[in-house]
Formats: sequence, C-alpha cells, structure tokens
Amino acid sequence: MCRWLAYIGEPLQPSTVILDAQHSLVAQSLNSPLGNETVNGDGFGFGWYPEDGGPGATPAFFHSIEPAWNDRNLRELTQAIRSPLFFSHVRAAAGPPIQQTNCHPFRHENWLFMHNGFLAGFAEVKRDLTWAVDPSLYPHLQGTTDSEVLFHLALTLGLQSDPIAGLGAAIGLVESVGRDHGIPFPMQGTVAVSDGSTLWAFRYSSEGRSRSLFHSVDVDTVRQMYPDAARLKLFGDHAHVVVSEPLNDLPGIFREVPESTVAVIDHDGYHHRPFLSADA
Amino acid sequence: MCRWLAYIGEPLQPSTVILDAQHSLVAQSLNSPLGNETVNGDGFGFGWYPEDGGPGATPAFFHSIEPAWNDRNLRELTQAIRSPLFFSHVRAAAGPPIQQTNCHPFRHENWLFMHNGFLAGFAEVKRDLTWAVDPSLYPHLQGTTDSEVLFHLALTLGLQSDPIAGLGAAIGLVESVGRDHGIPFPMQGTVAVSDGSTLWAFRYSSEGRSRSLFHSVDVDTVRQMYPDAARLKLFGDHAHVVVSEPLNDLPGIFREVPESTVAVIDHDGYHHRPFLSADA
Amino acid sequence: MCRWLAYIGEPLQPSTVILDAQHSLVAQSLNSPLGNETVNGDGFGFGWYPEDGGPGATPAFFHSIEPAWNDRNLRELTQAIRSPLFFSHVRAAAGPPIQQTNCHPFRHENWLFMHNGFLAGFAEVKRDLTWAVDPSLYPHLQGTTDSEVLFHLALTLGLQSDPIAGLGAAIGLVESVGRDHGIPFPMQGTVAVSDGSTLWAFRYSSEGRSRSLFHSVDVDTVRQMYPDAARLKLFGDHAHVVVSEPLNDLPGIFREVPESTVAVIDHDGYHHRPFLSADA
Amino acid sequence: MCRWLAYIGEPLQPSTVILDAQHSLVAQSLNSPLGNETVNGDGFGFGWYPEDGGPGATPAFFHSIEPAWNDRNLRELTQAIRSPLFFSHVRAAAGPPIQQTNCHPFRHENWLFMHNGFLAGFAEVKRDLTWAVDPSLYPHLQGTTDSEVLFHLALTLGLQSDPIAGLGAAIGLVESVGRDHGIPFPMQGTVAVSDGSTLWAFRYSSEGRSRSLFHSVDVDTVRQMYPDAARLKLFGDHAHVVVSEPLNDLPGIFREVPESTVAVIDHDGYHHRPFLSADA
Repeated sequence: MCRWLAYIGEPLQPSTVILDAQHSLVAQSLNSPLGNETVNGDGFGFGWYPEDGGPGATPAFFHSIEPAWNDRNLRELTQAIRSPLFFSHVRAAAGPPIQQTNCHPFRHENWLFMHNGFLAGFAEVKRDLTWAVDPSLYPHLQGTTDSEVLFHLALTLGLQSDPIAGLGAAIGLVESVGRDHGIPFPMQGTVAVSDGSTLWAFRYSSEGRSRSLFHSVDVDTVRQMYPDAARLKLFGDHAHVVVSEPLNDLPGIFREVPESTVAVIDHDGYHHRPFLSADA
Repeated sequence: MCRWLAYIGEPLQPSTVILDAQHSLVAQSLNSPLGNETVNGDGFGFGWYPEDGGPGATPAFFHSIEPAWNDRNLRELTQAIRSPLFFSHVRAAAGPPIQQTNCHPFRHENWLFMHNGFLAGFAEVKRDLTWAVDPSLYPHLQGTTDSEVLFHLALTLGLQSDPIAGLGAAIGLVESVGRDHGIPFPMQGTVAVSDGSTLWAFRYSSEGRSRSLFHSVDVDTVRQMYPDAARLKLFGDHAHVVVSEPLNDLPGIFREVPESTVAVIDHDGYHHRPFLSADA
Repeated sequence: MCRWLAYIGEPLQPSTVILDAQHSLVAQSLNSPLGNETVNGDGFGFGWYPEDGGPGATPAFFHSIEPAWNDRNLRELTQAIRSPLFFSHVRAAAGPPIQQTNCHPFRHENWLFMHNGFLAGFAEVKRDLTWAVDPSLYPHLQGTTDSEVLFHLALTLGLQSDPIAGLGAAIGLVESVGRDHGIPFPMQGTVAVSDGSTLWAFRYSSEGRSRSLFHSVDVDTVRQMYPDAARLKLFGDHAHVVVSEPLNDLPGIFREVPESTVAVIDHDGYHHRPFLSADA
Repeated sequence: MCRWLAYIGEPLQPSTVILDAQHSLVAQSLNSPLGNETVNGDGFGFGWYPEDGGPGATPAFFHSIEPAWNDRNLRELTQAIRSPLFFSHVRAAAGPPIQQTNCHPFRHENWLFMHNGFLAGFAEVKRDLTWAVDPSLYPHLQGTTDSEVLFHLALTLGLQSDPIAGLGAAIGLVESVGRDHGIPFPMQGTVAVSDGSTLWAFRYSSEGRSRSLFHSVDVDTVRQMYPDAARLKLFGDHAHVVVSEPLNDLPGIFREVPESTVAVIDHDGYHHRPFLSADA
C-alpha cells in the first residue's frame, strides 16, 4: 500500500526526484516492483516547506484523488517551486475511500507525516484508537485512514517534543489495542515525520517484516562513484532522499534502511539507530 | 445548507423533478431563494430504489463532488431510469470537506437518509456523539458529516423498528449532549428517511425555526386545479414530492410542512403529525 | 491503450461482467496481461441501452476521469440496472488529456462507438482529419481524442446506413491521410459499434498486427462444456460478450476474433467476415 | 461568464487578492454582483510567473474543475508562494464542458492569456476559426473553448511581436467570420495577456457594451487616501491589479477601464489607450 519519498537538503526543484528520475515516485505510482501493490493510483499528495520559511514555518500541501502519473498540476507545481524539505506519497487504497482528506502527507502545525503500510484489522480497532486521541486533537481528524489516526496518536503521546518516543508510544498503543482484539501483527509500515528542520524515517512492523525503505548515500560519495553523471549537478552537497524504492538502478547510491530502525537526517547528515515500539 | 427532494409514487423518470421542473432541484442548486445559502454547489447525491425491487430491496446511489448544475452523468442517469422512490440532495458545505463520502443520501441496508441543516457546534460534540453510535455500526461511518452521525445515532436508537421514535431519540441525544456543551439550539433541519416502502419527512429544530419544507398535494387535486397542464400526465395518481422549496410557482400545488412535524407518505397517501425530540 | 467490453443478449446486470468475472473489465483496468499497457487507469466509460428501450432508443452513458477499480458509482450503477446491450471501456491515455469528453463510448443519436488503439501520428494528421468531418457533425466533437474523430469520420462516410462500409471508408481515409504524412501504419485497433440492435466488433490495423479481441462462444456450448458452473445461470441463451481479453481462464469459452475481421452479433447470433479498409 | 484577476508588481502572496480581499476573486466565484452570471463555479485556474524567473520565464498553472470557493489546494498554493505577476480566473461555463483543458489561463511559451466573455455563435463559427489557426499551432489546442481559439488566432496573427495588433487582428477575424454567419455582435469580453514583463488588459465588444473591468490606482495614491489601512502594507509601491470587479467597496481605489480600451501596465506604471479590432 503506497510508496513515498522524502527529500531534505539544499532547496531543490521537487520534480527532479518526483518526476524525472529513472524510477521517480511517479514512475513508481504506475509500477513499483518492490511494493506490495504494483499500482499506486488512488490519489497522491505532495507537501513542502517553503524555500525561505525558516524554523517553525508551516508546510503547504497539494492533495489529489487522481493518479499521479498523468496529473498536470503536480507536474506544473513541482517544476515551478524549490524546497529544502518535501514529502510526496502515492496511494494504493486498502479500504478507506479515495478522497483528498485521505491523501498523505498529513499536517499538524509545522509537522508533516506520511505512512506506507497499515494498522491491521483497522475496522475493528478504529473506535478504540480514535477514542485514545486527545480530545483537543480529535476535531483535527479530517479523513478516515489508519495513518491519520496513527499520526494523531503520536501527537497525543508526545511526537512534538520527542518524535521517536512519541511514535514509539503510538505504535505501542496500536499493538496493545490490536492484540486485545486478537490481531497478531497490528502495525506494518514505514513512516516519515518532519518538523521542518529534521527528517525522521521509521521502518517497523510488529512481525519484523517491514515494507521496503531506502536512503541515498552522501552526495560526495555518489560523485566519487559516478564522476561523469551530469544529473548530480542538480543536487547540493547535503541532499538526502529517503524513499520506498531506489530512484535508479545505479549500484551503491541507495542503501536499505534496516528493520526496526529510525533514520534521522539533520544538520549532521544521515545516521540511524534501532527503533522499537514502546510497551503500552 | 443544502436542498433536497424526495419522490414516492408510480415509477417516474427522476429527471422530471430533479432537472426539468421550473425550480427543479438542480435549479435550486444554483439559486435557492428560500435557502440559507443561495448556492448549493458542493457536491450532490442521488439515491434510488429499483423499479422492480420489491420490499427490502437495497437502494443504489450516485454521489459526486461536483456541482449538480452541469453534471452530465446526473443528467444521463436520471433520464435513463425510472424509480418508485428516490432521494436527491444538493449540498452547501458548512465545514466538512467536499468528498463523496459526505454526500447525501446515506444508506444502511434498505434505508436511505438525508438531511438539510446542521448539528450546532459539531466540532465540539462530534466526539461524544460518535462514541454514542453502536460499536457494531461505528465501522459503517464513511464520511465526516454531522448528518451521517445523526443517521447512525438514529439507527442505534431504533430507527429501523420505529423511524419516528428512533429519530426522536437521536435528536434528543443531540440536544442533551449539545446543551451539556453550552449549545442553546443543538439541532436544525429537515430529514428524509425511507425503508423503500414509506417516506418519512421531518421538520424540526431546537429553536422552533426550522429550514423550509414543502409537500405536493394529491395529483387528483392538482389535476382539478390545472386541467390543461400537459406536464401532469407524467405523474401517476399516487405521486408525492417532498422538497425544500416548491418546484414551481403555481399556487396551491405545494404546501408547507408545519414546524415540529413529521410527514408520512405510504399506501394511504399523505398525512402528518406532530414531531418532537425525545428527552434524552 | 485501453481495454473494452461489449455485451449483447438478454437483459443482464452489467456488474456481472464488468465487475464480478475473474478477469472482469475492472480487473483488467488494474492488470491487463494482453494489453500494450498493463494499467488502464485514465478514466473509464459505461454506455447502455435501456432495458425497455425498443429499436432506436438513445443509450445513456456514465463517464469518469477516475480509475475504474475503486469507483463506487460504477459499482452502484452497474448493479442497479439491467441492459440488453452495453459497452464499457477503461482507458490508458496516450496523449489526449484525462477528461470526461475523452472517455469512451462516444454517442451519436442511437449509436455507440468505442475504440482500443490509436491513429498513429495523430498530432500531425488531426487537422486534416478533423476538417474532413462533415461540417454539420463538427460541432458534435466534444473531446480531443483520435477515437472520437474516427467515429465522426465514419458517421460522415455512411456508418449509419452501412456500419461496415462506413468504418471501412473512414479507416481508408485515415490511412490515406496518414501515408501522405509519411506514417507507415496509420490505423491500429479494435472498434465496437452498435445501433441498439446489432453489435459490430472490428479488429484491424494497417500493419496487420492488431490489438487483441475475443468473443464468447454460444451459451449453449458453454453449458455443455461446464454443466456445473453456477455462474452460467446468470446468462440467457443469447448472451454474447466481445472483449479485449478473456474474462476467465476456462478453456474454450473465449475465442480470438481473427485479424482484419468484423464480428457481427445480431438476432442470428455470432458470425464474422473479413474486414479491410476501403481505398480512399 | 467568468471573472478574472491579474496582478503585476512586487512579488506578492497571491492569496492576498485571490482569497483574502473583501470581494476577492474567490468571493466573486460565489457571488459576483457585476457579472452576467452570479455564480462562477465551473472550475478555475491560476497561472503565475516564478518569483526569480527573469525575462522569458515560463509561467506555471494550476487548473481545477471544482468550484474555487472550497478548494483547499488553491488556498494552500496561493499562500505558499510569491509571484510578481499572476492571473486567476473563475469560470461560469456557457457550453464547453467543465474540464481542466477548458480552464483559463492558457499558456504558450512565456505567454499567458485569459478571457471573460464569449465568441457569439461559437458552434457555428468554430470550424472556420479553428481552421484559421496556424497549422503549427493547431496541435497545441488542448480544450474546446472559444477563448483558447481566440488566443491561438492572436498567436497566429502576431501576438508575440505586438500584442495589441495581434489581438486586434484576431478579433477582426472573429468579427469578419461571425458576420459572414449572420452574427451581429461576434466578440464580447475582456482579455488579459502577458509575456511575463508587461500586462495588457483589453475591454472590447462588437456591440460596444463590454463586460466590466477595473484597475487599481497607484498604491501611493491609495496610501494617501487611506493612511490607516494596515492591509496596504502587504503591497509594494508598483503593485497593480486589473480585475472584473472591484476587490473592495472603498471609494477611489478601483477605476473602470473604459470601453474599447487596452490598459497596459509595465515599468512605467499604468496607462491606457483606445483599442479597436482590425478590419479583417
């Protein structure tokens, strides 16, 4: 269910990776060899922090219920702007209807969130999980996806002060409620979160067999590997991409994010560490 | 917010009243003089019982997020079929987003439901009201409107065995929860409900100043008043329309449904009686 | 580009073949193994003759720019009606934009038309071909596809009095104009045409390597082959389907329509004969 | 039919005039007192030159078939960017269908074009006018509106080297062809054109009773008139708006563009001169 891409680094024309790469996110919407579904045509979303926004700036988004592959507005928009941090997501719906409010990324103040995967048995656990969302956040729920509930649980449980602990606690609650309903593996997926400065990318599933996730290696390293690649000039020295599937077939450029791991990209570049859900 | 029309009687081409009347429902979508909003362009819905469905048949629906006035599919569909009982609704959104799952009528098994009006302060009471929906019905909530929650509260409280008591209890609960939140007039609106055999049309608001609602008089009576009206030949002897605004300017054809009243149209024709919410 | 299905026979619930078959048309929209494109997600159309329409009745249509696979309105509509003759088409756009006016089938009076394939080099020949459309028909062009122009050329050249000669002349013109522009193989595809009584299905390409096309064998024959197949009870004795790909994997039910052939299904059942374009 | 707005000046957040003014363009989409239609809900468009684009930069656009008044993407986009020159248009369709390719503004290389009004009897003259479009431009026609044909006629007749002469010649041709078809007043409307540096706004109709058009006076003048208006701080010294209806009720800020006039806004500010069609 779904494929996503997150970029952080020097301001970049988003079409560079969303549209123009060999296996761009839009190409993946039509054909994603590593995805659980080949076609991700049930709407898409694009969220971006403004080029000159500064810390705490509110990101903007563009959501559409149409497939990404022929969307002219997405093409126009991602060619016309530049952004130092953006998310994009193509959806393969697993139940919740195709509507803009079910398109990722989701936003809360200066935070963006997107998810590839699912909460197992969501129809059964939705009521309990939704009730656990802080009442002050409840009115912010706009759509009907499991992902949006997960985001609001994480907000409820401290995402904004500690993203890793907050999401860990939210997944812990999902697992606890799920197991109470007899669901063996309640959580599946990869999640991207940002506050506009740092990018956190999580790969985790209750069964330990998570959806695919890759990150690009340092641009410096790529330049040494492929000194003649003209396309590399489009990217700054601090550019990083995290993506459900590699954007090209060049060996060495994309590395898998390990199981049960959170990748963090901030001013110090890329690093990662183990990630587990918190016992609820 | 919104205008609606319900028809019951001999099988009729729905376009006759939805598209072709002087002030058809689609004409009202662009200009509704008696509406609180002049324009009802935020999507529409059409729900119909099949011509040969028999008792207990499941109705079908067509929902769209585009304005009704230029929708070619609505035109095609309502000209191509005939139905003995259909609902149609044009929406003026008051907050919940424009998406098919927020389009009326709503359906549960063989029941259809639509609403013009609002639950006051819905953002504040939504959590409590949604929690009061029977857990077995909770997963059936598809959209994010107050109207859909009201329908599922009525289902929870007995709509299917006694529609008048069930809706009365649901509105009673809405009023009770609303007043707990300091909302003086929690319920506003007109509601249409059907099981495929009988049509119930409610006009009620907590403040006693409800949205407009009209019903057509007996076709026999109309024929005596307007013996030369060619258009009347399109209608059978038992045709009845209930509608937010009269479909034409001919005196005597449409009568207002009184305040705090439920109009019932069944095999015995039209009759009405007082309707109040139940103390919760 | 595209997959299509045409049904003629006893009135049938269209969902039976559009949604519910093993490789239903909607299943083909997401995955069509024999198609030139795997995914046909760029809108769809459904056109049907009414159950009690009689000869010369105008068909209705439902066109949508969204993928067919998750479209609730298509599901509702094709389950709610019955029709003795209907067309359905899922599109993989090859250039002309995704908009309802580019969705098949196209209609002219009591005629329906749909096409899988393309006019090669359409951007180059469009002006000349459009100019060749009868001026009285020119204002009826609603969209921007090659298929709609082909239909109107066929109407210009006599489709309504002799469909085989009319389409043959239109393709002849396409080939003549195309070759004047240096296009070696101007016409590619399969075409379905009906007047509400007879179904004509053409398989033809200038290079003699046409898009796939299959027809179902007589229901009687199928019943003898699969006496226990419960699903066959849904079909009447005169039911015939013509479709881009077989609707199931059962050997013997679907036969390929040969190259350069027109299949005709009328009151005498299925028969076919050679089809070639007319020299222009 | 339609309302539009064009801005030129210091880079501005487009939402300032499209969404946030008293009678913003989006407010006009729901209620335009001076318009021939009150409601302009048949799609909209927004086209903008990038902030740092320089001369000859290609503008981008966002087109939608939904009403502007509840469109979240339009809100997000026009709040997230800044632009020194942008067009926006809300449509009331007069025949051609609601589809993105019929949304204004239209683009050719670095040129934008939009139109409020109509070519009278377009169904009758469309074939002749379309045939007069330069064959090299013909394939660029994407939609089916009179306005797009007018734009391409103007391109054919020299718009890019002399916009006033080019549009004058195009309107002259429209009038000539129209009169050959017995149409007394072939051209009606207001037109905005830009190359990214200069804005030309035309008000012209064959009968001399043209659609309304207004321009803002110099910001300096406004500041002297309304020294306390906080909102004025949002605008730079060279900001100019041309719009179908005034954006607010403050006397003196908006002046009518006279009949048969072209308003020009460039580095020298606002000036205007008589505009007539060229005899064809």
